[in-house]
Amino acid sequence: MSEDSKGKFAYSGITKLFHEKARLSILTSLSTSPKGIDFNTLKELCSLTDGNLSRHLQILQKEGLIDIEKSFINNKPKTTCFLTELGRAGFLAYIEELEKIVSEVSKLR
Amino acid sequence: MSEDSKGKFAYSGITKLFHEKARLSILTSLSTSPKGIDFNTLKELCSLTDGNLSRHLQILQKEGLIDIEKSFINNKPKTTCFLTELGRAGFLAYIEELEKIVSEVSKLR
Repeated sequence: MSEDSKGKFAYSGITKLFHEKARLSILTSLSTSPKGIDFNTLKELCSLTDGNLSRHLQILQKEGLIDIEKSFINNKPKTTCFLTELGRAGFLAYIEELEKIVSEVSKLR
Repeated sequence: MSEDSKGKFAYSGITKLFHEKARLSILTSLSTSPKGIDFNTLKELCSLTDGNLSRHLQILQKEGLIDIEKSFINNKPKTTCFLTELGRAGFLAYIEELEKIVSEVSKLR
């Protein structure tokens, strides 16, 4: 094996923070909506339960990848989630790594 | 939210069997080599330890996604791994799901 091939398919940019399936769904959803997405809509888009969505949002918020804004609309509480600049940059870098995999495999079709 | 948007970003085709990072590396490597890849080369390509590679190969073999062939070359044991037809078809279906994510996010750049 040539030195160049060492780690060729190791994909060090595939970090668990972004790669975990529920978080991948959440981040993809949020990346498509710069104005943010409310909790209930996000839950439906990602087919997640309340508990599961809450847990992953907390992890993403703690890492500074998303912001969570709480407000009241007609006296009803509303939770809106946004991707931060850090979140957007990190997620795009992760997506570039996924693209490498897709293009590697797509060559073979 | 429209009915069409429910589960829009749920990505049910992202199954853990293929999505786990080490297995994603192994399957991408094997998909590029129809003649198979020997254990030591695969270890280097994926930057995995002996133990980690063995464990993931066992899981993939048990699921019928890869074949493992043992032989002797100049009295030295050699282990070669191949993607099965089932493995190739399943992995391509998984890659198609990844492509959806990549294209969804790439629209925004």
